[in-house]
Amino acid sequence: MPRFFIAGTNLAGGMAVLRGRDAEHVRVLRLRPGEELTICDGEGTDYRCRLVSSDKEQAEAEVLEVRRCPAEPSVAVTVLCGLPKGDKTDYIIQKCVEAGASEIGFFLTGRCVARPENPEKKIERWQRIAEEAAKQSGRGIIPQVKWAGDLAGALDIAVKKDLALFLYETGEREALDQVLEANKEIKTAALLTGPEGGFAEFEAKLAKIAGLHVCSMGERILRCETAPVVAVTALMYATGNLS
Amino acid sequence: MPRFFIAGTNLAGGMAVLRGRDAEHVRVLRLRPGEELTICDGEGTDYRCRLVSSDKEQAEAEVLEVRRCPAEPSVAVTVLCGLPKGDKTDYIIQKCVEAGASEIGFFLTGRCVARPENPEKKIERWQRIAEEAAKQSGRGIIPQVKWAGDLAGALDIAVKKDLALFLYETGEREALDQVLEANKEIKTAALLTGPEGGFAEFEAKLAKIAGLHVCSMGERILRCETAPVVAVTALMYATGNLS
Repeated sequence: MPRFFIAGTNLAGGMAVLRGRDAEHVRVLRLRPGEELTICDGEGTDYRCRLVSSDKEQAEAEVLEVRRCPAEPSVAVTVLCGLPKGDKTDYIIQKCVEAGASEIGFFLTGRCVARPENPEKKIERWQRIAEEAAKQSGRGIIPQVKWAGDLAGALDIAVKKDLALFLYETGEREALDQVLEANKEIKTAALLTGPEGGFAEFEAKLAKIAGLHVCSMGERILRCETAPVVAVTALMYATGNLS
Repeated sequence: MPRFFIAGTNLAGGMAVLRGRDAEHVRVLRLRPGEELTICDGEGTDYRCRLVSSDKEQAEAEVLEVRRCPAEPSVAVTVLCGLPKGDKTDYIIQKCVEAGASEIGFFLTGRCVARPENPEKKIERWQRIAEEAAKQSGRGIIPQVKWAGDLAGALDIAVKKDLALFLYETGEREALDQVLEANKEIKTAALLTGPEGGFAEFEAKLAKIAGLHVCSMGERILRCETAPVVAVTALMYATGNLS
């Protein structure tokens, strides 16, 4: 069923009104009066609707059923990645949204090769990728994409979560499964992964001092764009959000 | 450390000999005598070596240590995917090898859009992608890429494994975590995922009759190239191969 995100204010009195880009999308999809669509308020609630009318300016739909979006996981996961090169960011955003992340941030580390002057300029494009992935995968929210600055900025976000993991491929680490098994009831989590060259040793030390769990994801070396998706999936599995 | 796969026969008497493309790769990497490299026999054994000499034709290295490759999981996972469009195959191969799959196969289903006349012709290119990913992620084997024909062919491969899962996004299904928790000691597994349009209902019925577990991976709709990676990761997590 086609899926739209609109603000709750447009969902008054048993009718939903789609305007602008969304109204256009209804026309592009050639939806006809009587056909069903899902409208989501972006805060986890789905409205199953039947299209009543549609023109260039707006589309109106009758609300048939209101329900909690079943695709939303019980844990809000923030993924924070050392900024990778090129369009790997896009891939990370798309796949992490599908896998269940609620927020995605990028930050610079000592080994980042990409060092854009105005990273904030990319946010708008990144946010569109997140929205498309949210629609496609049936999410109940549009995960936000943020620029987290540097490692300090990422750690500042991470330490406010119920559980914060720093995924690191060498040295002394905790086993990911043991940490997750001991934290099944969390409501928020942060997962930090490195850029192409990985994190430096002192970055891992800093994360540990800040209170993060420095964790291993096994002995296979994951690419910087693969690690976030694997980490989100493991967390979703461990917290009962993958079945 | 750079990683090479060579046949066991070139590892006699404490010396390893690299020829052809591998010898060239040693030169491209500008490895010098005295530097270390890992040579893997492709059957799960790693040889930590020190380069002794290198020219256009061949490179010779002294074996310093022999050990079981730590990156190999305890379960040999065969991933079988409904053939997707375009280069999504490449993505599936690369990511599944990183995630720990031992074998990857593609097959045609009722909803496959791509219907190549000679799919076997693609195997050579697919196999190169698997080899590159195996080197990059530190695997102890080069996962094999196969053409599995149609659903019957895929089911025939799957039913020979200790555990065979058919991942399906609708209808009556078992919970993935319950099935995996009940099968932690498996040595072999098969994971079947669909093409862009998903599996048809009768295909799921057929899989069930054949003895596969028809499983859900949660309410988020995963793209056909994302589902295999998520499934392999969940299995690796559940069997203790992700920490």
